[in-house]
Order: sequence, then structure tokens, then C-alpha cells
Amino acid sequence: MRRKEFAIEENKASEIKAFFAEMTFGFLGTISPDGWPHVTPLNFVYYEDFIYFHGSRIGQKMIDLKHAADKVTFSVAKEYAIIPSYFSDPKMACPATAFFKSVYIKGAASIVVDLAEKAAALAAFMEKLQPEGGYDPITIEDPDYVSQLKAVSVVRIDTQEMNAKFKFGQNWKEARIEQTADLLQARNHDLDEATIALMKQFCPHHKDSVHPTENKVL
Amino acid sequence: MRRKEFAIEENKASEIKAFFAEMTFGFLGTISPDGWPHVTPLNFVYYEDFIYFHGSRIGQKMIDLKHAADKVTFSVAKEYAIIPSYFSDPKMACPATAFFKSVYIKGAASIVVDLAEKAAALAAFMEKLQPEGGYDPITIEDPDYVSQLKAVSVVRIDTQEMNAKFKFGQNWKEARIEQTADLLQARNHDLDEATIALMKQFCPHHKDSVHPTENKVL
Repeated sequence: MRRKEFAIEENKASEIKAFFAEMTFGFLGTISPDGWPHVTPLNFVYYEDFIYFHGSRIGQKMIDLKHAADKVTFSVAKEYAIIPSYFSDPKMACPATAFFKSVYIKGAASIVVDLAEKAAALAAFMEKLQPEGGYDPITIEDPDYVSQLKAVSVVRIDTQEMNAKFKFGQNWKEARIEQTADLLQARNHDLDEATIALMKQFCPHHKDSVHPTENKVL
Repeated sequence: MRRKEFAIEENKASEIKAFFAEMTFGFLGTISPDGWPHVTPLNFVYYEDFIYFHGSRIGQKMIDLKHAADKVTFSVAKEYAIIPSYFSDPKMACPATAFFKSVYIKGAASIVVDLAEKAAALAAFMEKLQPEGGYDPITIEDPDYVSQLKAVSVVRIDTQEMNAKFKFGQNWKEARIEQTADLLQARNHDLDEATIALMKQFCPHHKDSVHPTENKVL
């Protein structure tokens, strides 16, 4: 039992990492000094189990982070498919829903001061967002980078809680899952094929499924 | 002068509306009773100048909204292109950037109690997300919908401030804009063609441009 549970945990973590690697941007939640819940879309990298992003030394993000760095959140979401109501009901609009992946982090933010950590985080950031290369390696040995590293602000989020919700009909009866998959196959929008694969992966009725529920908390 | 300014404002508002109509989901910012800046991805509709979304009567969103309904935010963002550093610099990674559209709202939330407003908002929501139809019209005249309308929570955000940032190189020199457009044309990723069109639309060097800056506040 323990080994199986561990296998699920491993699987979960690697799925979340793959999702973070695929998604170029997420939404930072901060509280401003005047009490607003600011939401800022930004490019990020998940590196060494931290979320890193960068920005200007001045600006609202930094003001908020100085004000309430101990309580920040980070949300990454991707919508796969809107499931129309008529897939399961010819009359009522109510069954309309959406399938998506969403990961939500609560943590504390800190402004990175160590130049080597800044360089490593930005190197990981570039490797993610510009994987084809085309620039000199970002290191503190390169004097051209040192002044740039000093000028840019790099922020690290230390994760205290991570919550993933991958919603692909896991709580549905097998017949509805199968019918929806068939109708998505026929519809064939951009992400419908990927959606069907995820529905099968997460389907609790499938004997190899390792995700019986849609809520998974790290 | 006044007429021209008005024309720009009109143009701005219609662009934001078109963006809201295109984007199926956004990120709600709320403050939880224990002081966290919660960020919740959700499907929404922009209808009659309000943001509307729906959800369960119970759940974190509703707890937060009851706690601090007077200060909520809503963020919608779409990334169009990651502009690699080597488009303008053969050595340094620093010029790497992203072009995107982003709209940010500050406002107050209220839970809609009037059934007719609920029905109208959900009808607009369905029209947006399931434009092909396939369901009976959502009205309070249909008794099958009335119990459903009573059971669902519909939330309205009254906008106090709206800030749009469409970043497509407006602050760049003409030569860099042109070079980037040429290189995007050659790269030809999914949204590169749309990106080039937006770069031209917002380019301050173009005589018909109506968007000399990238920040536009309603």
C-alpha cells in the first residue's frame, strides 16, 4: 500500500513539473499596502522546487512584496476543452463545463540577493523560455552579465502549499466519460485529442488509473 | 482634438471588449479571511459592463467574497509571442521578452440575488462559451431553469478601475520593430502572424496608429 501511494505521489510531482515546464506564464497574487489583492501575470520558471520570476526593482510587484512577502500565491492554469451542455443534455444549459489543469501555490516571497543564485535562476528561466539557445551562458564569471544581474530583481517563492486540480470528468460515470470522449473525437478542436488522452489517464474506471480524484494536494 | 481623443477611447473600449469576448477564462483576486491573496481561474463573461461568473454557493471564493467583497480584482492575459534575445543581440540574454495583451480590473463584487439578472448573465455566459447553442433559452419563464437559477451563485464585479496593457514593442525604435516583425515572419509560430499584425496596429511610427503607448487606462 505504502509503495503504491508513493508511486502516486511521484507521479503527481512529475506531472506538476511537466505542467510548469510547459506553461510560459502564471499569475502572482500579492496584497498591496492599500489592501487590494493584486494579480500579476508573469513569465516564470520552476527551478529547484522554487518559483522564480524577475522584474524591475521598482514597480507595484516589488512594493507589494515588501509589504506582505510572507503571503503570496501563484496560479497557473490551462483550459483544455469547453464541454457543451448538449453533450449530455438536449435541453438544459446547466451541464456545460470546462476541463482544465490548474496548479495553485501558497508561499513566501523573497528578493534574491545572492548573484550566483540570481544567475542560476535566470539561466533556468532562459533555458525554459528560449530553449533553442542563442545567447552566452548566464554566469557570474561573465563580467558583461554581472552588472545586468545586479540591476534586475529576481524573486523566489518558497512553496508552503501546492494544490493541483486537473479536471477531466473523474467524478463522472463511465458512460458519460465515454460518450464525451466520442463527441470530442468527432468535434476535433485543437486540444480535443489531448483532452481525450487526459480523460483516459485520469479516469477512475480505468484499471491503470492513478488519479481517482480531481483534487491533489502536495 | 477632442473628437480624436474620443475616437481613441472608443477604439480602446471596443478592443478590450473584443479581448474579453475572445478569452474564455480569467483570474479572480480575493483576500481570504486569513489574509491570503487568493487567485482563482474561472470562466467569465463581460456583459453590460460587468464581469459575471458563477459557482457553488459554498466554497472558498464565496467565503472570500463575503469577507472582502469591496476589493476584488480580475486579470485576463494572453501571451502572443516570446521574443528571443538573439532577434536583437547575438550575445546577451537580456533583450528576451514577451508580447502580450493583459487587462486588469479593480472593483467590488456582489452576489446577484435577482433571478432575472442571474438569468440574463448566465444567458450571456452561455452565448459566449457555447455560441453554437444547443440548449433552451435561460429565462425565468422556464420553470425547469428557475430551481437551477436559485441553486447557483452568480457574482457580479462592478468595475472601479480598468487597466489594459498591450505590449507589442510600442516603445521600440522603428528599425527594431521592423526587424522583429521580419524574424517573426520567418519563424512562423502559431501566433506570430497575429503578433505582427498587432505590432503594426500599435506601432507609434505608423501614421495610422491610435495607440502610441502600451498602457491604457479606462
